[in-house]
Amino acid sequence: MHPYSRIVEEVLELVSIELYAVAGSVSGGRLLVAGFREGSRNIYAYNGGGLVRLNREPVLGVAEPPPNAERVVFYRDVARGRELSRIYVVSVDEPGHEKPLHPGQEPARILGLADDGKSVAFSAVHERGVGVYVVRGKRLWKAVDAPAIAMVTSIRGDLVAGIGIFPPETRLFKPFTVDLSTSTFRVHEPPVKGNTIAIRIAPDGFPLYALEAAREAILYRLDPDSGKSSAIELQGMLKAFRPTSVNYLSFTSDGSLLVVARRRGRSKVFIDNEPLDLPEGMHGAAVEWRDEIAVTHSSKTTPTRIVAVKPGEKGWRTVLEGEKPKWLSEVFGETGYAEPTSSDGSKVPTLYLESGRAGKPGPTVILVHGGPFAEDTDTWDIFAAALAAAGFHVVQPNYRGSLGYGVEWTEKIIGDPCGAELSDVLAATKWALEAGLANHVYIMGYSYGGYLTLCALTQAPGMFRAGVAGASVTDWEEMYELSDPAFKQFIEMLFAGKRELWRERSPITHIDKLSEPLAMIHPLNDTRTPLKPVLKFVEKASEKGKSIELHVAPDMGHVVNTVEDAVKILLPALLFLVRMKGKEE
Amino acid sequence: MHPYSRIVEEVLELVSIELYAVAGSVSGGRLLVAGFREGSRNIYAYNGGGLVRLNREPVLGVAEPPPNAERVVFYRDVARGRELSRIYVVSVDEPGHEKPLHPGQEPARILGLADDGKSVAFSAVHERGVGVYVVRGKRLWKAVDAPAIAMVTSIRGDLVAGIGIFPPETRLFKPFTVDLSTSTFRVHEPPVKGNTIAIRIAPDGFPLYALEAAREAILYRLDPDSGKSSAIELQGMLKAFRPTSVNYLSFTSDGSLLVVARRRGRSKVFIDNEPLDLPEGMHGAAVEWRDEIAVTHSSKTTPTRIVAVKPGEKGWRTVLEGEKPKWLSEVFGETGYAEPTSSDGSKVPTLYLESGRAGKPGPTVILVHGGPFAEDTDTWDIFAAALAAAGFHVVQPNYRGSLGYGVEWTEKIIGDPCGAELSDVLAATKWALEAGLANHVYIMGYSYGGYLTLCALTQAPGMFRAGVAGASVTDWEEMYELSDPAFKQFIEMLFAGKRELWRERSPITHIDKLSEPLAMIHPLNDTRTPLKPVLKFVEKASEKGKSIELHVAPDMGHVVNTVEDAVKILLPALLFLVRMKGKEE
Repeated sequence: MHPYSRIVEEVLELVSIELYAVAGSVSGGRLLVAGFREGSRNIYAYNGGGLVRLNREPVLGVAEPPPNAERVVFYRDVARGRELSRIYVVSVDEPGHEKPLHPGQEPARILGLADDGKSVAFSAVHERGVGVYVVRGKRLWKAVDAPAIAMVTSIRGDLVAGIGIFPPETRLFKPFTVDLSTSTFRVHEPPVKGNTIAIRIAPDGFPLYALEAAREAILYRLDPDSGKSSAIELQGMLKAFRPTSVNYLSFTSDGSLLVVARRRGRSKVFIDNEPLDLPEGMHGAAVEWRDEIAVTHSSKTTPTRIVAVKPGEKGWRTVLEGEKPKWLSEVFGETGYAEPTSSDGSKVPTLYLESGRAGKPGPTVILVHGGPFAEDTDTWDIFAAALAAAGFHVVQPNYRGSLGYGVEWTEKIIGDPCGAELSDVLAATKWALEAGLANHVYIMGYSYGGYLTLCALTQAPGMFRAGVAGASVTDWEEMYELSDPAFKQFIEMLFAGKRELWRERSPITHIDKLSEPLAMIHPLNDTRTPLKPVLKFVEKASEKGKSIELHVAPDMGHVVNTVEDAVKILLPALLFLVRMKGKEE
Repeated sequence: MHPYSRIVEEVLELVSIELYAVAGSVSGGRLLVAGFREGSRNIYAYNGGGLVRLNREPVLGVAEPPPNAERVVFYRDVARGRELSRIYVVSVDEPGHEKPLHPGQEPARILGLADDGKSVAFSAVHERGVGVYVVRGKRLWKAVDAPAIAMVTSIRGDLVAGIGIFPPETRLFKPFTVDLSTSTFRVHEPPVKGNTIAIRIAPDGFPLYALEAAREAILYRLDPDSGKSSAIELQGMLKAFRPTSVNYLSFTSDGSLLVVARRRGRSKVFIDNEPLDLPEGMHGAAVEWRDEIAVTHSSKTTPTRIVAVKPGEKGWRTVLEGEKPKWLSEVFGETGYAEPTSSDGSKVPTLYLESGRAGKPGPTVILVHGGPFAEDTDTWDIFAAALAAAGFHVVQPNYRGSLGYGVEWTEKIIGDPCGAELSDVLAATKWALEAGLANHVYIMGYSYGGYLTLCALTQAPGMFRAGVAGASVTDWEEMYELSDPAFKQFIEMLFAGKRELWRERSPITHIDKLSEPLAMIHPLNDTRTPLKPVLKFVEKASEKGKSIELHVAPDMGHVVNTVEDAVKILLPALLFLVRMKGKEE
């Protein structure tokens, strides 16, 4: 078989692996499952036997329902990837009979959605900004206009909570609450500097939130009336784990605190400070299900699945997992964590995945995550898996700007994009070459990772053999013009208001320095990183005689929602890299 | 195997089939072979045993050398597909040691190249127009400036001959001669209306040319001094064949006239009016080689190869042919010829190729040729073969504007692009649906065929399920601005000077009517149909919410020169069509 058709075959098998995640629990002791199967994202009720699909058409996001819910609220993009969504509700006992939550809800970008079983709260982008809306019974109303990006995550009675970025201090994510009885919006100041990463209203009505502070994750209990936050002291094994971040916060039915805590790209699940016996890797939502805790689990080599464990007992079991292709095990070599030194002496938290199909040193892809406020962790990553299958080692630097390594590390990107964080990416590249992993290197990224790919190729010509920029940013000025109010705000925040940097930090400004082959892949209907500036970049690159290829993926937006979407992005990327690798052999 | 990876595997095997064509004869009784092998176009000397590659770097075009030549003159694109070529010369006995023909020859678009062993004549596009240049010994000079598109095809001593389109009457291709002794350029008027399609200076010094006249092909002998042409009467079997066109004209060493004559998409090779016993299909260059005539042969189901036959004897033999994949035979069903009736009652000469892998009726691609002054014939066609492999029947209409069916049919496109010839394409589509061949139809084309694909989708929405436009024209106004003098002239000719039609006949003007999924594939460095207007088309389509995908193929121009080029064009086209077909199943 030709290397091209082999990678096509394997990519198709990879994207077809069924993925399962915990989304909550619903009535009748059933688990609510978010599944990537049947070609798209769907929600299922699972009684331990068969899966019953609740939605008719694919789902973009779902609100975690209150325990034993009778209904599930979710939203769906109705604009072919443009992220203009309608919110639907489906009764758990009438699968496939979803209805619009409210006829007055106009399709909009949904920033957050929460459901307490009686009321649904969501934040959505409108023409001039962001609003927090509520649907209760037959009534839909806008509770407040949010001053900036506000993501609703929780509702209980008349209290809505979420996180967001708010002027005048727009560098940090902070908790906010909305009192529906008085239509009051309030941003809360955590006692120490940090990024708020999760907030949930506890059964007692007080919001609990997690903060990525300087060196550790801190949990707080918030009094929404006084605005005071009091720290919840970590104890026992949870304290010993020294988490730097939190994936998920919840409560069991007996009021125990459930924390999925994270450190160096891996997580553990704790109930009242004691860990559950679960497989290594990353864990997502964890809910009480009958006498077990059902947890989302994955790792770089384990596709996302649901496992369950009885608290206090040894041993876990698999609840739902997709069938894996037989060849998958041969694809993966070792995974590990390294800390290359960046140009200013900083340590760059970096994950790597060795391909079982490449020698050492071998061809290596520096795979740069998006966000930038995100983290590459030991989690299932279809890009990394496909690269390993294609015979590339994979290096994933958590450049400054990434979450999970303390607020200082995260905020250093603000006001300086394509600056120090690019040095971090280049440091990880040098490390890969010097540590005996890589003999030659490629760079690839999606969204902000696509932007950094373009930064790397234009700022460090000669370092990489080629690059793949997916859904990338080429021109901040033009992108700003094309963005909705939420993304305008995001760009302002990222640049700390320094508009004078937009031009200097735009890859199109430096296109003359592009000297390696570049593949650009871009969704047609992308509303986060619009296509138009990329077309301009390609036109300019063409005029300047660069070696550039472009693939515009139709009928999809920034988010990969279906197997078909994944194929549209992955296939051209992998075929390009395999072709480039072939030139070196 | 998934349909995607299967078609990738098969396309890769198809493009890797070695193709062989006759390019002349060289010293030592060796055949000069133009081969598409080793991943690119190359020239070889063949002594009946092994092939010796003459060129080091790939070849774009080669001049047919005089019999038993010691040297071969060829040109190569030195601008990654931009068709800016340098001319090289290689001694047959020093393979791989090509040298530039003359240091003063600037890279340029070569319109025609001829070599009589002592002098090389070529026409090339310069900044302001087209020139006819000569290299003799150490001297390079521009013999004349041609008033428009002039393609040199033959030189003998001080006489150069070719065909071209010349004002004021720019609707027809006419013969021209250049007298090098006086630097005189002269266009000759054939005695009857027709398109000149081949001209070669006979050993006696008089040019011979072929004309596609109203209903038949006519051969003329031209007196370049008086400008008079006298018809050469066809006799015997050649007359009985009633050719409508001529593929190739030459002379054997005993002065016999060798004519490759064409009718309804198939050809026969005649020496002094009597046919050679050769396989059915299409035949290209035919040269005397030892005691045989070596001929290029192919058909829709036979990859291009060299066969040989002894004049006057029965039976032919294969000289050089590529190895075919085992599955190739199962891919092809019947091939045939039909004459669907167009809207004005015209009969549209149409070829079809049934897929051995589709039912009847089955999914069918209307594959529209480029040019428009070209003809779909029973010749090896990698697009058609790949479509048949992917389970599509293929229909190839020779819409008005095509060659091979009389000058009236050809010239009807002039002054009316995207007019009556589109009706012909649609008539062939209806025929395919009504004749039991097609259950649903797709449209695909490259170059002018890409343009007609866009015309069809915007002028006849609802007829096709989807379309693939390769290297297409979206905007005549912008394309004119971006074209070199030769292509500017071509556009003027095609529109018969009616610039007021440019906007109306540009697909971008009618983009609102586009309603089916469209894949556009475009070479990055295309200088015939530039990329820029296509990027604009995609931008506009994206703004209007169309379903459009785009693949920009890097490091190549309009012409497919290498296996890699072919893959860059074919793979996205086939993957798109297979995906579209999958939606119907």
